[in-house]
Amino acid sequence: MRSISKLGHVALVTEDLGKSVEFWRDVVGLNHVETHDNTVFFRAWGDWEHHTLSLREGPTGVDHVAWRAGAPEDVADYAARLRELDIETTPVAADEERGQGEAIRFALPGAGHTYEIYFDVEKPRSPEELRSRLKNQPGRAWAKGASPRCLDHVNLQAEDPVTGRDFMVEEMGFRVNEEAIHTQQGTFGSWMSVTSLAHDIAFTAPTGPFTGPRFHHVAYFFDNWQDVLRAADICREANVQIDLGPARHGISQAMFCYVRDPGSGHRLELFSGGYHIYDPDWQKVVWDETELEEGLVWWGERFLPGSGHLIDESTSGAAPTPAGV
Amino acid sequence: MRSISKLGHVALVTEDLGKSVEFWRDVVGLNHVETHDNTVFFRAWGDWEHHTLSLREGPTGVDHVAWRAGAPEDVADYAARLRELDIETTPVAADEERGQGEAIRFALPGAGHTYEIYFDVEKPRSPEELRSRLKNQPGRAWAKGASPRCLDHVNLQAEDPVTGRDFMVEEMGFRVNEEAIHTQQGTFGSWMSVTSLAHDIAFTAPTGPFTGPRFHHVAYFFDNWQDVLRAADICREANVQIDLGPARHGISQAMFCYVRDPGSGHRLELFSGGYHIYDPDWQKVVWDETELEEGLVWWGERFLPGSGHLIDESTSGAAPTPAGV
Amino acid sequence: MRSISKLGHVALVTEDLGKSVEFWRDVVGLNHVETHDNTVFFRAWGDWEHHTLSLREGPTGVDHVAWRAGAPEDVADYAARLRELDIETTPVAADEERGQGEAIRFALPGAGHTYEIYFDVEKPRSPEELRSRLKNQPGRAWAKGASPRCLDHVNLQAEDPVTGRDFMVEEMGFRVNEEAIHTQQGTFGSWMSVTSLAHDIAFTAPTGPFTGPRFHHVAYFFDNWQDVLRAADICREANVQIDLGPARHGISQAMFCYVRDPGSGHRLELFSGGYHIYDPDWQKVVWDETELEEGLVWWGERFLPGSGHLIDESTSGAAPTPAGV
Amino acid sequence: MRSISKLGHVALVTEDLGKSVEFWRDVVGLNHVETHDNTVFFRAWGDWEHHTLSLREGPTGVDHVAWRAGAPEDVADYAARLRELDIETTPVAADEERGQGEAIRFALPGAGHTYEIYFDVEKPRSPEELRSRLKNQPGRAWAKGASPRCLDHVNLQAEDPVTGRDFMVEEMGFRVNEEAIHTQQGTFGSWMSVTSLAHDIAFTAPTGPFTGPRFHHVAYFFDNWQDVLRAADICREANVQIDLGPARHGISQAMFCYVRDPGSGHRLELFSGGYHIYDPDWQKVVWDETELEEGLVWWGERFLPGSGHLIDESTSGAAPTPAGV
Repeated sequence: MRSISKLGHVALVTEDLGKSVEFWRDVVGLNHVETHDNTVFFRAWGDWEHHTLSLREGPTGVDHVAWRAGAPEDVADYAARLRELDIETTPVAADEERGQGEAIRFALPGAGHTYEIYFDVEKPRSPEELRSRLKNQPGRAWAKGASPRCLDHVNLQAEDPVTGRDFMVEEMGFRVNEEAIHTQQGTFGSWMSVTSLAHDIAFTAPTGPFTGPRFHHVAYFFDNWQDVLRAADICREANVQIDLGPARHGISQAMFCYVRDPGSGHRLELFSGGYHIYDPDWQKVVWDETELEEGLVWWGERFLPGSGHLIDESTSGAAPTPAGV
Repeated sequence: MRSISKLGHVALVTEDLGKSVEFWRDVVGLNHVETHDNTVFFRAWGDWEHHTLSLREGPTGVDHVAWRAGAPEDVADYAARLRELDIETTPVAADEERGQGEAIRFALPGAGHTYEIYFDVEKPRSPEELRSRLKNQPGRAWAKGASPRCLDHVNLQAEDPVTGRDFMVEEMGFRVNEEAIHTQQGTFGSWMSVTSLAHDIAFTAPTGPFTGPRFHHVAYFFDNWQDVLRAADICREANVQIDLGPARHGISQAMFCYVRDPGSGHRLELFSGGYHIYDPDWQKVVWDETELEEGLVWWGERFLPGSGHLIDESTSGAAPTPAGV
Repeated sequence: MRSISKLGHVALVTEDLGKSVEFWRDVVGLNHVETHDNTVFFRAWGDWEHHTLSLREGPTGVDHVAWRAGAPEDVADYAARLRELDIETTPVAADEERGQGEAIRFALPGAGHTYEIYFDVEKPRSPEELRSRLKNQPGRAWAKGASPRCLDHVNLQAEDPVTGRDFMVEEMGFRVNEEAIHTQQGTFGSWMSVTSLAHDIAFTAPTGPFTGPRFHHVAYFFDNWQDVLRAADICREANVQIDLGPARHGISQAMFCYVRDPGSGHRLELFSGGYHIYDPDWQKVVWDETELEEGLVWWGERFLPGSGHLIDESTSGAAPTPAGV
Repeated sequence: MRSISKLGHVALVTEDLGKSVEFWRDVVGLNHVETHDNTVFFRAWGDWEHHTLSLREGPTGVDHVAWRAGAPEDVADYAARLRELDIETTPVAADEERGQGEAIRFALPGAGHTYEIYFDVEKPRSPEELRSRLKNQPGRAWAKGASPRCLDHVNLQAEDPVTGRDFMVEEMGFRVNEEAIHTQQGTFGSWMSVTSLAHDIAFTAPTGPFTGPRFHHVAYFFDNWQDVLRAADICREANVQIDLGPARHGISQAMFCYVRDPGSGHRLELFSGGYHIYDPDWQKVVWDETELEEGLVWWGERFLPGSGHLIDESTSGAAPTPAGV
């Protein structure tokens, strides 16, 4: 039976590649793996795979979000299943995406974001100056900038978030762990995972005028709450815009801070804490509209009541991320 | 030559003594020293003196802010000097304020807040269940609630903050370490100390309609930035209102969070970090109106630009602290 | 196909139940769920199940280590499989162990520790004074003592650790993530998981004279490295023996501190950090005898070279935990 | 009346200047101010003066420990007073030591360490790439390596520590805040300050054979306990020897870790926490031999009982710091 094992990487498109590279390398402190065909590949010090983030120049958006399959044969099995469902797929040849074997891409039903499913991937050894002395850790921690441990999750938005959510549950094995449901307006957001994380992905409804599938943020994980504060300091010194936080989500229990890639306007969530679910019988936690404010921000800077800031924050802002996939 | 050695304690008045006692004892985690004549005396686990905070019931306000003199004879010397300056003083007999020797009180010129100057004070040993096993530490850390180490500073407001500041500099030996000066409107705030702290007291101008001398907050110190986040969690669980933060001040460099005593509306600053000044030739750091936003909040929840929130935040808010001294 | 989902709880036996209860409740800060038939049930604020630790009085040891099955029918399926393998099983009736449905117990082949497999379990709501205001969190954090989030893992010792390890891999679906292998003497320790944790269980060889199956420690998880330091402070104030640390393991990358339950001598690992494995093709990390010292302690108090302290530390010490299961 | 305001800097001599520079710049993360006449000048991001550490090549030792006077005229006043006391002084011309005005040097009576007293000193603005955007902070925090905030204190050893201590108290205005006094053998160590710090300097007796005045360590301060753990990580990745810790002192209450400059063997204390004394009537805290173990290490790696490690640790070790001043 085909399965997904985890979020693999996010491929972002940026209007200013130079500025974005500076941000992710020097401010966030990801390790540059290689640049190939104008695409720049990054990973965090605790990431083993070839890349967890790639950047190429173009109109700001998301090229694709990649999910690693559970087994080598699952890539072909997913291709077959998508054909059965009449969903168009694009094959990706081995090494067409650097460091990666054969894969497929398709548009998520009802949402439109481009998903990639792959299994084979290189796990290159770090060059000596970036390598950890610890055998079980690919890169050296704290070498530069904020220095997160690893990729954590993504947050996407679609006009119809329910169809995308259902596809991920039924076809990709995800479980909805938490959900925001408005008594009248229905499901506002779903926090889902295929791993033990409280979410590998959050899917939320756009609350402003819909302009296509949208990308809210990619999150990288830090070992300690304090690391998020230190990262906020580093961002401010580098003149990077802090969008919200440091604060704590109720939903997912994360200590977080949203900052913006100055080259693209894409949001990065500096993320720590959160919880894991190992129970097979987890009961979905549901937040209604009266509980949502605390669900979104348990403490710390909050969306402004009555100002529509919640809407703006979720879908655009000073540096919009229209993220046409 | 008479001198002041440090901030000693703050005597607050609360409309709901029961609620306030619960807040300071169970949520903040101060140790209850004794209750005498309807006044409740508290200190933090690292405070040696009899009390650093007292509470009595009455219309919300500040009874007095107490400064410890540098030597026993300084109390009488200050009394004499105040007579010379035609400033009315009220003598406080030994033990009239619990745990304390003879003292004097007077209204700060130009501001109106009641100041107390004392020297003799009891340093009672903690009862066994609150005592630290460390010889150099009066109380046991982390026993209850947020559990700050010690009293840090106060922040006061007056219609004319300059006269109060000048009195403290000229007569009480304070140094102005940082100052916010508007190009047109003049001095907005002064951060001053008589110790090595970046401020033992901040004096700021009211920006709304003036209603008498005001109290902005009392601050207690924590050893670590993370302790402020933990304290925010504890406050939220206890349904205590968070006013602003967690965030970081530019001025003073403090990691902080403002919360409200639910019995009185008085603000408490949960405070960590900051810096010390040991240099005799410190050059005052001046922030003008273009720099002030970063000076007030370097990162974290910020005052809303254009909303007048800065004004409201500084002098009143949902739970006002009119603090007639 | 039958499966295990996670470590469920540890049932400890203590020579001094009163002292042990004080330690786990007041110093560690676990929540007391109920006492029934002289057994005391505890869980941490982030644990949903009825208990993750139980204590009863008797000669210091471990009653059983419990694994939660992946599905309700797996309990019976495991019973059948154990019969096939000629392994004697003891049925546990519903509610024979408080809060739990039908289960089975058996001695781990080659090791001798009593394992329990269960699925049905109550997830009782916390009483109001211990309940979190967060919907997705069963208990209130930071209410008392060190206050860990949840149960993390166990560490067991057996004369023949390889047979036990192989049984867990072949029959219970565990993966060996890290291993310590001496060039001459073979496998010294195996760190294994059935979840994404770097280990749900470590299995190590005794290095002193073998006296039966042994229990090295149970670990509870904290969100932050600093929380382990705070917990060390709390233990010292309570006169609880610190065995080793605060320090950092190379293997598992955990920030940790070992302390002793004064009633039983059982070790508790205060644990934070560590890493997760979401990859289906994880390559086991192997540490040989030249790498082991760094593997065991990356920094912090270390086993004494040449003193045999490593041996003593691992299997006995001032307060031995012979832990005959 | 002449006075000392604070510890100014430490001038170390190293056998391998290249290695030492790499350590202090890349691992500790101090900012290089300038190199002049083969002396390399460093300061931390929160240090305003030209340097708080200098390094020159030569047999490992300490060139001098510098104290800043309280006023410009105090340098000449100290010179006069030392003449009165028949203590030989060496004048240091302006800019003979880079960035510094006229100063004097002399050997501390009874101890032999070279002390320097200066007042005039440059406070150069950081070059743009090292400068903080905060007006009240000279350098950018977290830019490289461990990144401490500022110089904290020194720890010296002398055959007769009492005469040195008394000179500092009587002639330099120091207060003894804590003291270790053996019932038979007398004073073992004195923790003294002229600022509000629990110690600007510790003076301890050598417990091994005396070979001249010795240097135990220089300490740099971090804002958070966790920063010391992060620094330990960084040191281990850089193959820097950790001597002791991370651990917590009872005396001074500091969270600390001792590491060694690989070029010289000089010890650096990574230091956080501790407490301040603002009271003019502080009662010296005295630790006798039964209390000393906890006084030295409250928790964390400790000196080995019965092994003489305390002795070794204090005066030499694998990488000795004979530190002939």
